Amino acid sequence: MVYEHFIRVRYAECDRMGFVHHSNYAMYLEEARTEILRSKGITYKEMEDDGIIMPVRSMSFQFIKAARYDDLLRINVEIVGETNVRCDFKYEIYNQDNVLLTHATTEMFFVNKQNMRPMRLPEKYLESFD
Amino acid sequence: MVYEHFIRVRYAECDRMGFVHHSNYAMYLEEARTEILRSKGITYKEMEDDGIIMPVRSMSFQFIKAARYDDLLRINVEIVGETNVRCDFKYEIYNQDNVLLTHATTEMFFVNKQNMRPMRLPEKYLESFD
Amino acid sequence: MVYEHFIRVRYAECDRMGFVHHSNYAMYLEEARTEILRSKGITYKEMEDDGIIMPVRSMSFQFIKAARYDDLLRINVEIVGETNVRCDFKYEIYNQDNVLLTHATTEMFFVNKQNMRPMRLPEKYLESFD
Amino acid sequence: MVYEHFIRVRYAECDRMGFVHHSNYAMYLEEARTEILRSKGITYKEMEDDGIIMPVRSMSFQFIKAARYDDLLRINVEIVGETNVRCDFKYEIYNQDNVLLTHATTEMFFVNKQNMRPMRLPEKYLESFD
Repeated sequence: MVYEHFIRVRYAECDRMGFVHHSNYAMYLEEARTEILRSKGITYKEMEDDGIIMPVRSMSFQFIKAARYDDLLRINVEIVGETNVRCDFKYEIYNQDNVLLTHATTEMFFVNKQNMRPMRLPEKYLESFD
Repeated sequence: MVYEHFIRVRYAECDRMGFVHHSNYAMYLEEARTEILRSKGITYKEMEDDGIIMPVRSMSFQFIKAARYDDLLRINVEIVGETNVRCDFKYEIYNQDNVLLTHATTEMFFVNKQNMRPMRLPEKYLESFD
Repeated sequence: MVYEHFIRVRYAECDRMGFVHHSNYAMYLEEARTEILRSKGITYKEMEDDGIIMPVRSMSFQFIKAARYDDLLRINVEIVGETNVRCDFKYEIYNQDNVLLTHATTEMFFVNKQNMRPMRLPEKYLESFD
Repeated sequence: MVYEHFIRVRYAECDRMGFVHHSNYAMYLEEARTEILRSKGITYKEMEDDGIIMPVRSMSFQFIKAARYDDLLRINVEIVGETNVRCDFKYEIYNQDNVLLTHATTEMFFVNKQNMRPMRLPEKYLESFD
């Protein structure tokens, strides 16, 4: 299942070239992750209040074309690999003219907030992730 | 006592106009506050680990001239009002040509991290603040 | 006329205390300004492409209560003073429980992008600002 | 040649977990790139004023351990592949205890700022890059 999330590019996110600075894409992906989870009935805030955090193990970006100020970006996000110890996401970012701007992936894992050790995701969340 | 702190402007902090985006100044001030305290023997990290946080009650900025990419900014920071319940800072930001770019002020207060209520700053910190 | 703009707080915008870091509010205000102008038929992007920029002369914030991760903020923005050479905005930020978190103001002025000098706002924009 | 660049972690760069939010690393790398170039006699600002920009084609990060507030990071940056049309950088980030936190790579290419097309890097810069 691919979830579509829309983000309007902020002025502050653009650089001297007039493009979205590449450091902002990680925040865009995170917002998209939050929203695909919300669409599945999980709020990441509740997970974290429940003692589970989901750090990023790795992330990678391929930039094809630049996003620009005031663009209305569409982020296609999907969960591509997921077990009870980790969860990988894949993303494609398009602009309002349906041009593919960026490919990205992130690998996340589940960590117990108390002892900061990797943990298995409890059953109640696992069902929703699928 | 005025403390001088130097910051090199990052590319990502500049906007389409080529200027430092105004949202970044709050981070510059915070870095300058951290360093004036360090020069007095206090690390804010230790204060926070010690259960004391220092939220911003108000802040204001007057922008006179723009800072630009790769500028080496000098921030003159001083503590202008301080008691055991609050602490105010004043800032002036200059570029490498000694041109005054920005005036700013912040009002901070001390809060107990456990119960999130205002608190008096313990004696051991208070001496250093002066 | 007060325009209401909604912003969901991003994870990356929150700090060690779990609060929205105060440096992010300037971006929230900017997004709200962009949207009140859009509601009046002006896109700031077009203004800038038309050679007019609108730098911030001053800004101030009063923080009453903290915003937190995943809060759905409502920003009430209005134009409180406006002539053909400048434009001031006032903002109030509320959370989803209708609690007032922050007051803020910004003073902007109009600048010719070519020569970087203050300018009068052309008639066609001025009407929409009102 | 490996260049060592030091960055003090800002409060604003840390998240609810107390860790540097992963979106900030791209800015750290950029600052390190700027400084390795400066050490070779090139300021990126001059290159850009000279009509040459250096967009990021791809970037990837492996996060091994988290950086924390007030850490003094050491970034080891080196140019690992470079021709007159592109330039790749490799990075390792360590904390003050010499613990390896992050591996990263970026692929950049040279673009003519006027027409936004890929270009060869002029001879005068090319020598310094080596």
